[in-house]
Amino acid sequence: MGFYDSVYKMGLLLCDRDGGLKPMDAEQLRECAHEMVDFIADYYKNIESFPVLSQVQPGYLRELLPDSAPACPESLQDVLDDVQNKILPGVTHWQSPEYFAYFPSNSSVAGFLGEMLSAGINMVGFSWITSPAATELEMIVLDWLAKALNLPDEFLSQGKGGGVIQGTASEAVLVVLLAARDKVLRRVGKDAIGKLVAYSSDQTHSALLKACKIAGIHSENCRVLKTDASSEYALSPESLSEAISQDIASGLIPFFLCATVRKLGKCWYYIINSCGSSASTGKISNSNGLWLHVDAAYAGSACICPEFRHYIDGVEEANSFNMNAHKWFLTNFDCSALWVKDRSALIQSLSTNPEFLQNKVSFSRQHGCGFQRLASPLRTQVQAYIRNHIELARKFEEFVKLDPRFEVAARRNFSLVCFRLLPTDQNNLESANRLNHELLDAVNSTGKLFISHTVLSNKYVLRFAVGAPLTEERHVVAAWTTLQEKASELLRNSQDSSAVV
Amino acid sequence: MGFYDSVYKMGLLLCDRDGGLKPMDAEQLRECAHEMVDFIADYYKNIESFPVLSQVQPGYLRELLPDSAPACPESLQDVLDDVQNKILPGVTHWQSPEYFAYFPSNSSVAGFLGEMLSAGINMVGFSWITSPAATELEMIVLDWLAKALNLPDEFLSQGKGGGVIQGTASEAVLVVLLAARDKVLRRVGKDAIGKLVAYSSDQTHSALLKACKIAGIHSENCRVLKTDASSEYALSPESLSEAISQDIASGLIPFFLCATVRKLGKCWYYIINSCGSSASTGKISNSNGLWLHVDAAYAGSACICPEFRHYIDGVEEANSFNMNAHKWFLTNFDCSALWVKDRSALIQSLSTNPEFLQNKVSFSRQHGCGFQRLASPLRTQVQAYIRNHIELARKFEEFVKLDPRFEVAARRNFSLVCFRLLPTDQNNLESANRLNHELLDAVNSTGKLFISHTVLSNKYVLRFAVGAPLTEERHVVAAWTTLQEKASELLRNSQDSSAVV
Repeated sequence: MGFYDSVYKMGLLLCDRDGGLKPMDAEQLRECAHEMVDFIADYYKNIESFPVLSQVQPGYLRELLPDSAPACPESLQDVLDDVQNKILPGVTHWQSPEYFAYFPSNSSVAGFLGEMLSAGINMVGFSWITSPAATELEMIVLDWLAKALNLPDEFLSQGKGGGVIQGTASEAVLVVLLAARDKVLRRVGKDAIGKLVAYSSDQTHSALLKACKIAGIHSENCRVLKTDASSEYALSPESLSEAISQDIASGLIPFFLCATVRKLGKCWYYIINSCGSSASTGKISNSNGLWLHVDAAYAGSACICPEFRHYIDGVEEANSFNMNAHKWFLTNFDCSALWVKDRSALIQSLSTNPEFLQNKVSFSRQHGCGFQRLASPLRTQVQAYIRNHIELARKFEEFVKLDPRFEVAARRNFSLVCFRLLPTDQNNLESANRLNHELLDAVNSTGKLFISHTVLSNKYVLRFAVGAPLTEERHVVAAWTTLQEKASELLRNSQDSSAVV
Repeated sequence: MGFYDSVYKMGLLLCDRDGGLKPMDAEQLRECAHEMVDFIADYYKNIESFPVLSQVQPGYLRELLPDSAPACPESLQDVLDDVQNKILPGVTHWQSPEYFAYFPSNSSVAGFLGEMLSAGINMVGFSWITSPAATELEMIVLDWLAKALNLPDEFLSQGKGGGVIQGTASEAVLVVLLAARDKVLRRVGKDAIGKLVAYSSDQTHSALLKACKIAGIHSENCRVLKTDASSEYALSPESLSEAISQDIASGLIPFFLCATVRKLGKCWYYIINSCGSSASTGKISNSNGLWLHVDAAYAGSACICPEFRHYIDGVEEANSFNMNAHKWFLTNFDCSALWVKDRSALIQSLSTNPEFLQNKVSFSRQHGCGFQRLASPLRTQVQAYIRNHIELARKFEEFVKLDPRFEVAARRNFSLVCFRLLPTDQNNLESANRLNHELLDAVNSTGKLFISHTVLSNKYVLRFAVGAPLTEERHVVAAWTTLQEKASELLRNSQDSSAVV
């Protein structure tokens, strides 16, 4: 699944110069695509000239476009002019070196070329025969990546496990939740669906709750276990054990645990390791028959660096493991790698076998929905790439520490710094939150950078996530300068207004 | 969701010539992407030189690739050589003019350029602010397409309805099934999930059964109503009414009906219209409070031609309507357009509202998972394109009718011809089926064309689906010649072997 930009009136391209119908002409493709390459290369050349966060107002585009599809063909140049003048102002530039919001969504030359090749061949790989290379390359490349991450052999495709590409981490958690649900329901009977309980911490992505809704798991049976600053927002094995025992005592059926290796509001964290009791949560999960899913959507990329691999120690206890190559692994959106130890559970849960899929070769494959644009960049290069981002984040963190008006709001593990502006009246949480919200809006409105926020223990906290492929030290310095300037303005204004009062 | 081809060792592209790390350099992008354009344009120029159906054996690729990711960068030319020599032999060429299998999956120059632009900007549009143009363009273009299809105004975005792009028709039916499920469960209580009943005909795509599995609808509550040749494989309102009454009498709760405008094994069909009683199925559905979903994944494209629009007469009774732009509408895979009358039902069922999505602008949007690569080709051109395919299919049907060794197995409505080779002993169904299975394998093994099959009333039937963007009359003629030659060989061999016996 992907969110994409668009070309919205390419009618011309269905015709040749004489008006004949040629929807896919090799020479027209060549000519137009070369033109498009230059458009996109120029976009990257000039990417710093755009406001990072789009500054348009809701509904802006309907005023610029006609009410129904254009009737006359236009030249490609006219279309590109429209993209430049009408579409790009409404784009938030995720690839900008000044993009520090949410999470990175890396593109790269390799990723872009992979997309081109995919789009060029444009096949639909719903079974092996519909394009053998699709199924096989997916399996091979995911084995490569599993080895690069040092995952246990049970996750490789040559045994009972294997990897499969999903669109997003949200799809990945849905897919394994369904497999886990059906596995337990085969044992206890499907009418027990109302008794199934899923566990996570309050730092787990909301995608799990959505997956539970889809799968028919009752919302009151989704245990979102509380964490707090004292344990650095990690789930303790003790509280998990207690919740499981209580549920069993109430006649409920624990079946799923989602462990998260992630940027919290605060920092990346792995609930299994966070208590220092490396695999204990995994063991609790195993001994209670829970399916343990490890969601390392972002942090997974960092784990190809030996110094960060320990964040997924304990993964050998898991049933499934997921990381998003489209986040920090230089692969275009969307490409999320999911590994399972028992691929038959996925197949049982998600396969249908209609007549039209019967053919000479029946090739057992997992339920896959994405494929192989994974560029498989070389390990040492990605390691250097990731280390550089983390170093830039460390520098930003230093800047924050050196300015007494600010505080670092949580420990930084990887490339995310959570921080906030301290209010003059530090006891007034509400005014502190308002101040930081105002600072967020003020810096984002400059168009010079884009950051986002979260709330940790009721504090409104700013997030500075380093990870765009073009980000250099000078961008981090400039971003900090803007933040300081806007903070000074805000503090001056708030003092002025207190003075007036 | 997409299945894609791949570039699997682009490590080189993370470095510049001096070995420095430049994952996204505008000038390197320009240079490499121009090279890739020529590779893809040459692919289309030479596409007829490949066997349409890949002729490799399962596991072929693992022997050609290393066990782990390559350690050294290679030149782009080396990578492209590998794609040519190792990947393309494992590709089944969906864009080949000799591809007549399953369903078309159209690319076009416009579609390809849209993919390039999407990949170039590479944004993630999970909320309005993360790229306003993404959300807005999706809404606008789907309104355009709804108008081109003459959908009722209730499906437009300016009222309570609207369109949203999904990956596939399978995702579309899942999304609306969930909305329908939750709507009824809000009324009757979630413990009643075991009582919910969904209806379809035996000609509905297996994706509905998969969606039911995911949503926790009990498999014994999925009514797959039988159809047969006498009613041209259409579901009769009478049998639907009867099934609903019986279920209500048994204390069950009918909640969902999937109507299909599709290529059956046989031909495109619309269960609502097929009985001549245009909106009666829709009325049955409405009067029983069922959510009526109309799946026009393929046939929907044809409905922009006035002479075919009547196939979706009655759509005003539906709650949701879906067509795949990536099938027959010159848009690259995957891009499936879904319209609903009540977008709040989708939002209620599929939204979560975590803190990180809170921002200055809260813009209510449907659950979308795809976007805007929809090339919006001009209506008259797509009409001509579709009519041309249908005319080619009509010619193929004539060829079949003129050869007494064959029969047309079902009425042709659009661009799909179902046919079979008649056995010498017409009463022996099994030998007839075997003969046609052998014919399928024989023609597909030539690499000169690719067709698929289905089973209709126990008959093994061959499917010839015209729809690739490059297909011309000469390709249809050549395909028929190959079919006749292989049929002659098979019939001669079977006579020889009877003579021996």
